[in-house]
Amino acid sequence: MPPARVANIFANLSAVTSGEVFENLAEAGNVRIERIVSNGGATPEGEWYDQEWDEWVLLLAGSAGMLMEGEGEARSLKPGDYLMIPARCRHRVAWTAPEERTVWLAVHIGG
Amino acid sequence: MPPARVANIFANLSAVTSGEVFENLAEAGNVRIERIVSNGGATPEGEWYDQEWDEWVLLLAGSAGMLMEGEGEARSLKPGDYLMIPARCRHRVAWTAPEERTVWLAVHIGG
Repeated sequence: MPPARVANIFANLSAVTSGEVFENLAEAGNVRIERIVSNGGATPEGEWYDQEWDEWVLLLAGSAGMLMEGEGEARSLKPGDYLMIPARCRHRVAWTAPEERTVWLAVHIGG
Repeated sequence: MPPARVANIFANLSAVTSGEVFENLAEAGNVRIERIVSNGGATPEGEWYDQEWDEWVLLLAGSAGMLMEGEGEARSLKPGDYLMIPARCRHRVAWTAPEERTVWLAVHIGG
């Protein structure tokens, strides 16, 4: 199989005008690599992500607050920050930067 | 399992003074997520990476030329550029920026 063509993860950010937009960048085996772009969006109040698979996230641009269930305060993330969210670790995006696009890379493993 | 603590992928870049330095950031299932930092380094002349697993790479800082076997010219990569390198697709880093650190994220899938 030939290598995929080169694309840029910061392309077409301005098309995201509200909420969170999810886009698959690559899939291989049981792995899915995704871009998430937010324009001031957050997880809807009272909702949590609760996944059966591990997710590794890297914040690439903007900023965000990631709240883990059981933690009193959201973790504040800046560009370059990353963390592993294990399966079944309930979490939500409490806030993202209001005046710029926030861009995440998410690697979903074993979904 | 609790979430991993937050770390930053751009930490300690100045410690890389020559060549290419590889560091595992996370492992889960059959996936390994790695940071590669280069200070003007390249794959040694005449050597190729030839892996039995897929590798998805994202250039985060600096710049690089990625040569795929059978292609006449290296693909020039800038921050945000990504591509999937399928298993057995022989490739090498022809060059990286001489005057700054080049930082890659590599997701090794099924190794």
